[in-house]
Amino acid sequence: MSNKKKFTIEDESFEKPVVKVIPLGGLEQIGMNITAFEYGDSIIVVDCGIAFPEDDMLGIDLVIPDITYLKENAEKVKGYVITHGHEDHIGALPYILNDIPANVYATKLTIALIENKVKEHPIPKKARLKEMSYGQSVNLGDFRVEFIRTNHSIADSAALAINSPAGTIIHTGDFKVDYTPVYGQTIDLCRFAEYGKKGVLALMCDSTNVMRPGFTMSERTVGKTFDTVFAENSMSRIIVATFSSNVDRIQQVINSAEKFGRKVVVEGRSMINVITAAKELGYITAKENTLIPIENMKNFPNEELVLITTGSQGEAMAALSRIAANIHKKVSISPGDVVIFSSSPIPGNEKNISKVINELTMKGAKVIYQDVHVSGHACAEEIKLIYALTKPKYAIPVHGEYRHLAAHKELAITMGVPKENAFILSAGDVLSLSADKAAVTDKVTTGGILVDGLGVGDVGNVVLHDRQLLSENGLIIVVMAVETATGEIVSGPDIISRGFVYMKESEVLIAELTDVVNETIDDCFYRNITDWIKLKNRIRDSLSDYLWKRMKRNPVILPIVMEV
Amino acid sequence: MSNKKKFTIEDESFEKPVVKVIPLGGLEQIGMNITAFEYGDSIIVVDCGIAFPEDDMLGIDLVIPDITYLKENAEKVKGYVITHGHEDHIGALPYILNDIPANVYATKLTIALIENKVKEHPIPKKARLKEMSYGQSVNLGDFRVEFIRTNHSIADSAALAINSPAGTIIHTGDFKVDYTPVYGQTIDLCRFAEYGKKGVLALMCDSTNVMRPGFTMSERTVGKTFDTVFAENSMSRIIVATFSSNVDRIQQVINSAEKFGRKVVVEGRSMINVITAAKELGYITAKENTLIPIENMKNFPNEELVLITTGSQGEAMAALSRIAANIHKKVSISPGDVVIFSSSPIPGNEKNISKVINELTMKGAKVIYQDVHVSGHACAEEIKLIYALTKPKYAIPVHGEYRHLAAHKELAITMGVPKENAFILSAGDVLSLSADKAAVTDKVTTGGILVDGLGVGDVGNVVLHDRQLLSENGLIIVVMAVETATGEIVSGPDIISRGFVYMKESEVLIAELTDVVNETIDDCFYRNITDWIKLKNRIRDSLSDYLWKRMKRNPVILPIVMEV
Repeated sequence: MSNKKKFTIEDESFEKPVVKVIPLGGLEQIGMNITAFEYGDSIIVVDCGIAFPEDDMLGIDLVIPDITYLKENAEKVKGYVITHGHEDHIGALPYILNDIPANVYATKLTIALIENKVKEHPIPKKARLKEMSYGQSVNLGDFRVEFIRTNHSIADSAALAINSPAGTIIHTGDFKVDYTPVYGQTIDLCRFAEYGKKGVLALMCDSTNVMRPGFTMSERTVGKTFDTVFAENSMSRIIVATFSSNVDRIQQVINSAEKFGRKVVVEGRSMINVITAAKELGYITAKENTLIPIENMKNFPNEELVLITTGSQGEAMAALSRIAANIHKKVSISPGDVVIFSSSPIPGNEKNISKVINELTMKGAKVIYQDVHVSGHACAEEIKLIYALTKPKYAIPVHGEYRHLAAHKELAITMGVPKENAFILSAGDVLSLSADKAAVTDKVTTGGILVDGLGVGDVGNVVLHDRQLLSENGLIIVVMAVETATGEIVSGPDIISRGFVYMKESEVLIAELTDVVNETIDDCFYRNITDWIKLKNRIRDSLSDYLWKRMKRNPVILPIVMEV
Repeated sequence: MSNKKKFTIEDESFEKPVVKVIPLGGLEQIGMNITAFEYGDSIIVVDCGIAFPEDDMLGIDLVIPDITYLKENAEKVKGYVITHGHEDHIGALPYILNDIPANVYATKLTIALIENKVKEHPIPKKARLKEMSYGQSVNLGDFRVEFIRTNHSIADSAALAINSPAGTIIHTGDFKVDYTPVYGQTIDLCRFAEYGKKGVLALMCDSTNVMRPGFTMSERTVGKTFDTVFAENSMSRIIVATFSSNVDRIQQVINSAEKFGRKVVVEGRSMINVITAAKELGYITAKENTLIPIENMKNFPNEELVLITTGSQGEAMAALSRIAANIHKKVSISPGDVVIFSSSPIPGNEKNISKVINELTMKGAKVIYQDVHVSGHACAEEIKLIYALTKPKYAIPVHGEYRHLAAHKELAITMGVPKENAFILSAGDVLSLSADKAAVTDKVTTGGILVDGLGVGDVGNVVLHDRQLLSENGLIIVVMAVETATGEIVSGPDIISRGFVYMKESEVLIAELTDVVNETIDDCFYRNITDWIKLKNRIRDSLSDYLWKRMKRNPVILPIVMEV
């Protein structure tokens, strides 16, 4: 090999060329998919996603990965390689590209979706978006990356063959095996097999559905279900809620609509954006007059209409939730409407979805939410198929919670990967892989950076902790003005509260609290405590004790002393 | 009939005696089960539960029903009749009994659980707890209520036959049909049939599982699963998490433990309370040396131990969550431990449960959480059975979300109840029922009263809204002291924040905000605005505009002016 001199052999026990796999998101922030691959002086970044905030991240809009490691090695970064166009794989690109500009490689629809994003958040000129086709490879430093066709709940998804002098790593991205896909062709199993024959160093495979036995059903089966529902409800208006990125699902709604002589109306900003882009690129086809603007709905009877909308996760501001709550400007539910949730709940959204279903039912709609969806992720037998084809030396389960990765590791072992060759990585782990050895050899800085409005990273644990305390118990402010020269209180103490109790109605409580504060101040003066900081602490402590004893409450207490 | 003079015939179109059904909780507050039945001068109250706070009820501990209607008719209230001992059926008793004391009637275990509650919250002497047995009736004014044996996920659950001169209403409570119950006998189907033969005016039947076809499995099937898991994991310590109130489930863990030669340790406050009470009353039996104190665990090898614990819903402070997070004082997870979640997720708890499962898996435990639980509620075929036996004139589906009640109504219609005789009631609806007519004739005040610490009803929408705003965006306080005589600012403006951004690190931001405030003050003085309220509003508006433009943030802004 010609580039042997570049081998990074920090640990001398690695005698063969070493490639490093460094997840910068993932397990600790489910959804934030971003992994660095490093060989010698080359780094490539696979996917660049955001995570949605956890329940305790109050007021946070989204979470992006901490890329300290990439910044420290910015000159090595050769490019970004993206498997598919879901937010948890592309959402952080506008932020990260501004820190470390480099070209972005992805398939056609994925590029279109990234272009949509960077319209709102411009990126540096050094970062160009490069369209790749299946089977095509790109050289990025010491890496050569090939895009391999897969199937998933978004069109144009790809697996990656990441070739380096240390060997080939296959990264499946999110995938399933669909022998009868709606658009395009079946996952390129032959290419996986060819790599398997040549020898695969490591397989990084989707774990989401590993705990489900069998095979995931074909997307096309949902189309048949749509046909049945359309046939059984021929006199009703039909509303279908689904993920805006599921272009194939939308195509199937259009197909059923055309089959049953219905017009299609699209509602919801992201749905309109995606359908417009997908239609332009040829991923969605419809007869000339099938899609009509929402304003023209009134010209057609209910039984000739289908509405495709966002809101299948019960998101408060999405079109379907507004329709259900009767606050949508253009659509309201009438008895007899049929509403299909063509989706399954993302964990954490169950209660919001139930709320929307109940609201729709109350207005007389028939709501169908079971068996009108298939997953976009491979089940256990599909994952085994990929192992059987690629026969990897090492297994690195990706995508999923810890329990999924753990179950996937067991599956890999049953598929012949030696136990010591299967790795569950945490964010920041540096896994060094060579033909004869693999080990976690280092740990780099990672984490989630919280985005709140336009602020990136200016909200951290202390601020979140304050928000938590404020949200649970509210706030009491004690304010007074003190003459600096004499130490005399010339105004106050006044007590102001927010989010505590109905203070207006509780004059008694305010009077009690004022007494507590005055007693504390008197006591401090008696003890010659004139340090304002100490005084403020005493006030905080005495109010806190009093409130806990009197009403088992624990508000944030903020004493303020103005010196005049 | 002798008491014809008492008939309440407000609507003259009711010619026969009228009984009124008035849900005071229910649909709008799932879980807050409380229903008033009124005939002439008699009111009885069936169940008296709490609801758990919704996600947007920040800092609220629990919700109790607004019983304004009962207070207005306190002299009519003859007693409380309780179907079973779950919190959503008994939890509000300590609060409500203090407002309207009257006797409480329930079966043995239910009484014991209520006694446990009133130990902490004493109730008036006028309210006595009266133990009832199955088949026994009690006269309460014009009502005569019979307790009928049912099966459920807690022992001693009962249906009620509520007899009045207007006819008999059957209320199932929460129930299932278990032909092989662990404790006691099968639901008294014969008694339902006898009432059906005599004629049932209305059936109020559990709707929770109405959308599930078929029959709910017997509780005893879980015992067989436990045996299998115990047999397959004979070398591991076994930890079982379940609901503390599910006495039969706990009994089956003890049975399997004894069969496989293991000692049983109980952990978690509510679990210890319930097992102690249930053992004393004979609802749980164990050999003399089976149950051991947690301190003695160290004397036994792992394979001879079972730990029964709370925390099956991922509750942050429950024993299992603390064990999983490694902050439990007496138990920590070792690789090889087997943890069984013998429960299903209550909607809204899915993410917390996943978190605990992942933490346990990370520590090397094998976690089993599928197919080790059966529901305590009847599925569609069981509900049909009750309709077939009771043949009610009217159907009033109870217990469940709106979609469940709507599906139950459809089921009732297929079982022969005329469409116009099936009612989905909202809280506060007054449903008047007579042999020849039924209609919602009135609406009374209802609602949820929020309990926060010791405060009952002192937190309302304004306070919750403030907490929401504080939680999402934090708080900025602008404070200044002004000389009353001259209007001169003698101290400040100072800016203080909580939960906003790292203010310490953002001196620039504070300086900017101070400038904005100073400009606003100057502008006000220039325009001769000297009214402090107007000045404060101007400051709030200008800071709000500035922060939104600069960083798309929207904190609570609180200007304070001290006059000195």
